[in-house]
Amino acid sequence: MNSEFEFIQNIKKKYGLKYVGDDCAVLPKDPETDMVITADMLVEDIDFRLDWTIPEFLGHKALAVSLSDVAAMGAEPNWAMLSIAVPEAIWKSDFLNRFYDGWHRLAAEFGIELVGGDVSRAPESIVIDSIVGGDVQRGQAILRSGAKAGEAIFVSGTLGAASGGLKLLESDLRYDQEHDDSGQNLIRRQLQPSPKMEVGKLLRSRNLASAMIDISDGLSSDVMHICEQSGIGARIDELPVDPDLYEHFTNDESMIMALHGGEDFELLFTVPSEKISGLEDLSVTRIGTTTANIGIIEFIRDGKFEILPPKGYRHF
Amino acid sequence: MNSEFEFIQNIKKKYGLKYVGDDCAVLPKDPETDMVITADMLVEDIDFRLDWTIPEFLGHKALAVSLSDVAAMGAEPNWAMLSIAVPEAIWKSDFLNRFYDGWHRLAAEFGIELVGGDVSRAPESIVIDSIVGGDVQRGQAILRSGAKAGEAIFVSGTLGAASGGLKLLESDLRYDQEHDDSGQNLIRRQLQPSPKMEVGKLLRSRNLASAMIDISDGLSSDVMHICEQSGIGARIDELPVDPDLYEHFTNDESMIMALHGGEDFELLFTVPSEKISGLEDLSVTRIGTTTANIGIIEFIRDGKFEILPPKGYRHF
Repeated sequence: MNSEFEFIQNIKKKYGLKYVGDDCAVLPKDPETDMVITADMLVEDIDFRLDWTIPEFLGHKALAVSLSDVAAMGAEPNWAMLSIAVPEAIWKSDFLNRFYDGWHRLAAEFGIELVGGDVSRAPESIVIDSIVGGDVQRGQAILRSGAKAGEAIFVSGTLGAASGGLKLLESDLRYDQEHDDSGQNLIRRQLQPSPKMEVGKLLRSRNLASAMIDISDGLSSDVMHICEQSGIGARIDELPVDPDLYEHFTNDESMIMALHGGEDFELLFTVPSEKISGLEDLSVTRIGTTTANIGIIEFIRDGKFEILPPKGYRHF
Repeated sequence: MNSEFEFIQNIKKKYGLKYVGDDCAVLPKDPETDMVITADMLVEDIDFRLDWTIPEFLGHKALAVSLSDVAAMGAEPNWAMLSIAVPEAIWKSDFLNRFYDGWHRLAAEFGIELVGGDVSRAPESIVIDSIVGGDVQRGQAILRSGAKAGEAIFVSGTLGAASGGLKLLESDLRYDQEHDDSGQNLIRRQLQPSPKMEVGKLLRSRNLASAMIDISDGLSSDVMHICEQSGIGARIDELPVDPDLYEHFTNDESMIMALHGGEDFELLFTVPSEKISGLEDLSVTRIGTTTANIGIIEFIRDGKFEILPPKGYRHF
């Protein structure tokens, strides 16, 4: 039984698809500019549950996950399309108005215009496909494949919060706009993630990152994607575990969530050692170093060493 | 209760969306070129049934419906993305391999490369989102809004076949690759439509069409879209009813299918009278004339006159 990653690899090989396999496809636009483009599906009861979120957050998240892919190329988002299939009962409710409001509130922050999409009926579950296009200077998109052995590995922000929020939702805590505490922080990181557009753009404009990906599947899986596509390995010896996790989970559980939990939508990137000083004013943490052990991720914790299996999210 | 057309109009007005409302969005690409882009959802048990089609046809159709939107702008398709959510049982079958084969066979005809998309799990039904991008000379895309009163209205090919094929499938006739008769012709027009790329491009390169749309919802609805967006009316006095229909349906039934049946994916366009001679070598039929009666479609048949309600397909 193949995973979706193997399936995509097979399709790529079979049909010779040269643009598939990064956070965005990078297509030539004009002599100075490349276009980046990405599509992300969100499926009800797989990627979200209606009783866990509110329509505004879902609209926000649909756009945020695609913006995060654009951020991971160091590109600037410009336009978007939104396709959505909804059951009749949802159509008759105020769901879509609230969903589009949440979508547009985030879009307005980044000056993104909705240019198209589709609205369809669905038999049972809501399915959303979010498409975002953007621009980047020709040849300057930051790919997953550009890392070399001996570079520093960094992440933006903190890790594990979205996964912790999911766990709290599974244990019947709910989003509550009246409260503002560590549990609600985690839940909001799950339901209403912030794409790291500024960090992505600064890394590109300062020419600091040799490779980049957003953390959607989970740190371990996403480090592996960079390793495989760059032909390197990695040693991880530090994790910026989200501090709110410790109020709800053990140290071990928190660390596992930071390591394998998906949907943090932070940026994971590699930086040659001579450029590290350029990161000084950014909220980023050095988590390790790339190595020459192709496809091997070493994890060092409390002086103990293990080889890390990628355990992030898979649809199949 | 709003239709999806009203919903899209409302969204467009509420958020000031200037690129929404044609077959494709038209975005500036470089000083000589515009990019066109479209997205179309196909939902299982709404837009297709697995026991009526084969995976190859479904892959073909997913691409064809979006190519048809590009054809309706007079543009040239270049690249595509494909997002698909499938239940686990479908994932484990040969469905996706056969689906992608059908998709790629049509893509190869037009030199289109798959550049991205998404693969996701769905709880029950398959949902496909097909995205196609293309190019057209700057300012030359043929919009729905360019028609004037007193122009000729044309369609490519014949009408009603896809609708007839759907009726035959509903009455338990099935696709059968061993047979080649009028019933199978109609079924194939439903399951494996041909986008009219050449006609679309010729109309643009010869600068013949003032407005264009593809017939996806049904002739009556799609004439109305041109009328509303061009601020005109239309008089229809001729219909190129697909001849295969007469072998399975009465004259009246056949005419109704040609008039209101969706998914023919023929091109509907308006031509100023002085340019009609430029169409001589194309398989197109003049079906009527645009009028100054804004939003009114007159239909003349056997000397009798009626005002036509748009009865094409609606999801809601």
